[in-house]
Amino acid sequence: MRRSGPDDSLWRDVRPPSSQRLLLAALESFAERGFHGTTTRDIARRARMSPAALYTHYPSKTALLFEISQATHEAMLHELLVAFAQPAVSLGERLANLVRVQARFHATHPTAARVANFELRSLEPEQRLKIIGLRKEMEHVFREAVRLGIEGGVFSVGDLDATSVALISLGVDVSRWFVPSGRLTPARIGDLYAEMALRLVGCQP
Amino acid sequence: MRRSGPDDSLWRDVRPPSSQRLLLAALESFAERGFHGTTTRDIARRARMSPAALYTHYPSKTALLFEISQATHEAMLHELLVAFAQPAVSLGERLANLVRVQARFHATHPTAARVANFELRSLEPEQRLKIIGLRKEMEHVFREAVRLGIEGGVFSVGDLDATSVALISLGVDVSRWFVPSGRLTPARIGDLYAEMALRLVGCQP
Repeated sequence: MRRSGPDDSLWRDVRPPSSQRLLLAALESFAERGFHGTTTRDIARRARMSPAALYTHYPSKTALLFEISQATHEAMLHELLVAFAQPAVSLGERLANLVRVQARFHATHPTAARVANFELRSLEPEQRLKIIGLRKEMEHVFREAVRLGIEGGVFSVGDLDATSVALISLGVDVSRWFVPSGRLTPARIGDLYAEMALRLVGCQP
Repeated sequence: MRRSGPDDSLWRDVRPPSSQRLLLAALESFAERGFHGTTTRDIARRARMSPAALYTHYPSKTALLFEISQATHEAMLHELLVAFAQPAVSLGERLANLVRVQARFHATHPTAARVANFELRSLEPEQRLKIIGLRKEMEHVFREAVRLGIEGGVFSVGDLDATSVALISLGVDVSRWFVPSGRLTPARIGDLYAEMALRLVGCQP
């Protein structure tokens, strides 16, 4: 049976509890064996339900993947928007806040982030477009923070778009390598990454 | 039928040609549907062979994945070792060479790199250990280049290990987002990433 983990907080408000159990079961199954390697029967068994009961909550395996992906992306985007809107003492701090929040999110929810980041190809075309839209919004937030710093004369970068993508890569890749039992906590990773990001854009403290 | 792509160069020397065809077919299938979503029948069909003929070359689907993963990791590691050993005018240039080579490799071979980076969990335990060994060697090369720069007083970083991992993340993530038809060539990405890496470690040009 599933132990409670740090990823749980993303699904805390899902009702009824059986839907929540199905989402968690689907998430763990996809993370272990990939979307295509998982059957709805696997998910139902893991959630201690019958396959028929699963279908009363979600019409398909893809619906579960979409739900996971959408909820994860929306939670991440929301945190980024809040961070961006926060009063910051400097343009550097605004970017640092974004990078901190993103790296910390990926370390706090590595399983959900991994499935959300790396199972995009398994979504239906329409679902994928919706998720790509959310990803573009995130990219715009990063890009805008970098652009503001360049315009303000405090950042110096070779290529605005490549730099924005690279900053996002730092956080995204945390979900690939992060081990919750490792030396670094999500908060510490956030701080280290914020510091590296500022150096990467040539911002002197 | 398969068009010839930039990823092909990794398998150019594989003999006999039917083995090469199988590797390419497996690589594309894994990239499209994931390891668990692919059957040996899919691979054989794509390589225009019978499933029985496939088994005369590779004993299992996992053997194909391991072959792809090992060849890709070995090619990447070799390029990194060559870059590290190159006479460099400075400690900064030595690190820049590593980052350039790694980012360029991931943009030149995005499909192989994606499968090699993101299908590790699908390998047999013994195979996985072998690949993890190759990855650790790569990490050591990056770590050593960063350490040398710190020791030489030209880099200034918050955490040696976190910085080495972050530098690797920049290149690894290129395989996730890179589109060969995009604005940036692999060579340009290599140069931009080398420049960002030097700033990230606080190395003044």
